[in-house]
Amino acid sequence: MSVTAPLGFRAAGVVAGIKASGARDLALVVNDGPSRAAAGVFTANRVKAAPVLWSAQVLAGGRVKAVILNSGGANACTGPLGFQDTHATAEKVAGALEDSAGEIAVCSTGLIGERLPMDALLGGVDTAVSQLSRDGGLAAADAIRTTDSVSKIAFRRGEGGYMVGGMAKGAGMLAPSLATMLCVITTDAEVTSEELDAVLRKATAVTFDRLDADGCMSTNDTVLLLASGASGVRPDLAEFEKVVTTVCADLTRQLLVDAEGASKAIAIEVVGAVGVEDAVTVGRAVARNNLLKCAIHGEDPNWGRVLSAVGTTDAVFDADRLNVAINGIWICRGGAVGDDRSKVDLRPRDVTITIDLSAGPHSATIHTTDLTAAYVHENSAYSS
Amino acid sequence: MSVTAPLGFRAAGVVAGIKASGARDLALVVNDGPSRAAAGVFTANRVKAAPVLWSAQVLAGGRVKAVILNSGGANACTGPLGFQDTHATAEKVAGALEDSAGEIAVCSTGLIGERLPMDALLGGVDTAVSQLSRDGGLAAADAIRTTDSVSKIAFRRGEGGYMVGGMAKGAGMLAPSLATMLCVITTDAEVTSEELDAVLRKATAVTFDRLDADGCMSTNDTVLLLASGASGVRPDLAEFEKVVTTVCADLTRQLLVDAEGASKAIAIEVVGAVGVEDAVTVGRAVARNNLLKCAIHGEDPNWGRVLSAVGTTDAVFDADRLNVAINGIWICRGGAVGDDRSKVDLRPRDVTITIDLSAGPHSATIHTTDLTAAYVHENSAYSS
Repeated sequence: MSVTAPLGFRAAGVVAGIKASGARDLALVVNDGPSRAAAGVFTANRVKAAPVLWSAQVLAGGRVKAVILNSGGANACTGPLGFQDTHATAEKVAGALEDSAGEIAVCSTGLIGERLPMDALLGGVDTAVSQLSRDGGLAAADAIRTTDSVSKIAFRRGEGGYMVGGMAKGAGMLAPSLATMLCVITTDAEVTSEELDAVLRKATAVTFDRLDADGCMSTNDTVLLLASGASGVRPDLAEFEKVVTTVCADLTRQLLVDAEGASKAIAIEVVGAVGVEDAVTVGRAVARNNLLKCAIHGEDPNWGRVLSAVGTTDAVFDADRLNVAINGIWICRGGAVGDDRSKVDLRPRDVTITIDLSAGPHSATIHTTDLTAAYVHENSAYSS
Repeated sequence: MSVTAPLGFRAAGVVAGIKASGARDLALVVNDGPSRAAAGVFTANRVKAAPVLWSAQVLAGGRVKAVILNSGGANACTGPLGFQDTHATAEKVAGALEDSAGEIAVCSTGLIGERLPMDALLGGVDTAVSQLSRDGGLAAADAIRTTDSVSKIAFRRGEGGYMVGGMAKGAGMLAPSLATMLCVITTDAEVTSEELDAVLRKATAVTFDRLDADGCMSTNDTVLLLASGASGVRPDLAEFEKVVTTVCADLTRQLLVDAEGASKAIAIEVVGAVGVEDAVTVGRAVARNNLLKCAIHGEDPNWGRVLSAVGTTDAVFDADRLNVAINGIWICRGGAVGDDRSKVDLRPRDVTITIDLSAGPHSATIHTTDLTAAYVHENSAYSS
């Protein structure tokens, strides 16, 4: 189902010949309306890929007719010629759909620093247009995979019967602001582009932005939210935000579980913070601590490494009032030794580290993975 | 030689029984004067071990008679009782030397979150005092090792005949502000504590502070600089700073080469920055990028990962003017593909990544290591 779960959308996923493997590598999502309101959030990396520069311009207009996404090449660090390639891709899609290139978003993922094989890609656009269908959501989700071992899709029904659907890709370089990921979310609700923008920013801030597998921020991250209005349902905006957030959270979880080389899914719950920002800062610092990530891989409840990481932040806390639990056992109390560490069971894949800053009422959870030899092997061998 | 290379210092390194292995675990360095001017720099981590809290108070007075250092336990996250242990250690040394505890610095390294075996430690102080000698520098350097595979020592002669000597330990958790390291530097030059403080801050800022093996900041980092004045030489301060910096750089290099599980020593040279601070910021961001560190381990000249890391910083640069060389081959020019990447030879252990921001005249070099399966294995198994 994925992006074609809501009414008003067709999609396709085809083999354009960009990937040497011969796997699907080009996806197209088309909004048949009646509305084409859209919003997007993009990587905060200052080195932005050509498709990010292009699509940010498109989204500034608040309208998207179609999104064309390729795997097999990021079209990042490719200079002015790379930008021309993105522009040519949008023009090609616009021509085939008899629409305006200014309302065609483009996403790319794969190797950085190489030009795309444009003959293959432009030929693939014709194939994709010819295969567009209401059943194309799964093929589209498959076509955007790089090192992803599975397709990531999600959908939810909202009150009154409208739908929200989505697809995502991303398995390495997962970090805020947005993991290295492409994500397209669709809905047949009637929502304006301004409303979509506000909802998408709130939803991604508490989902994709709180996933931090390896602290590495991509040049290509893109999350798009498109509304066709085809259900005729005008949703309550708070309820709509909740549904979109649920879809984002579902996809975030799928990204986390599929992270390259990970053997543990670690939730870092920071509680007792003076504000959410402090909680996020502390959670991120802990999520990025290689020593701790190694310890969890080794099933060692090493709370000293947690405290070391907390201590690098500027969050409000008193070192003598920090408490840390791992999988529910409070092994650090008041900044010193707490309950018996031998009680901590680290054998399950899911690990929860709770950090109580004892400073205020706010909390946030950051999701990360352990650091494994498999991660090193995969990222020593794969050029991206 | 190490800390006993300069006149006026005696040292010892003994087996106190803190380490289960029965290896040396207690070092004592005594300044016999006539001066006892001293300065120190400590971890910027807000979770500070008891000996750091104690020694910072001692150094505030600008005078140090002796430094007692133990391996086998960090005495970090041990609460008020841990602080009492540090205090008792200083009192014990002061009693044995018939001096004031307020001029005894204490350093600890090893496991976080466990109390020290004080009976063993205090008994060891007596042994160490009885073994103090002008030849004790090597034994002291040996006694502060944890996962260090070798002792780290250095010394240089200054103009006019004064000496600067030093010892250090540190193999994991290497990060600024100071790697997880203990370092004692001694000199027989005549220098005031204020002068020592200024020189030490400048020297560590361009040496230890620019070593970033795994981005993890310790709770115990301490660098002390003690002056006996025994040579009677009053150095030119600029020349003295140069000699101290050389000793620090020598020890920094030894820490880098001995970093846990590393197979490459990577120098990240950032040039063309508008200021040194920008250059350091960019160098650190690149040094902490796990994906790049994996790529270098795999001998893959993956400049896209360099640009991705540069793009996460707030340094002044234009993405279209970034140039990157790996081992002298400019494989990225103007933010896009440059010279043939097959020309890059990544087989040597030493790797230099040069990043030209094309924004100004300033530069800085950050030193790091690759990320290896051996690092993961060592840090999955070792509790610290």
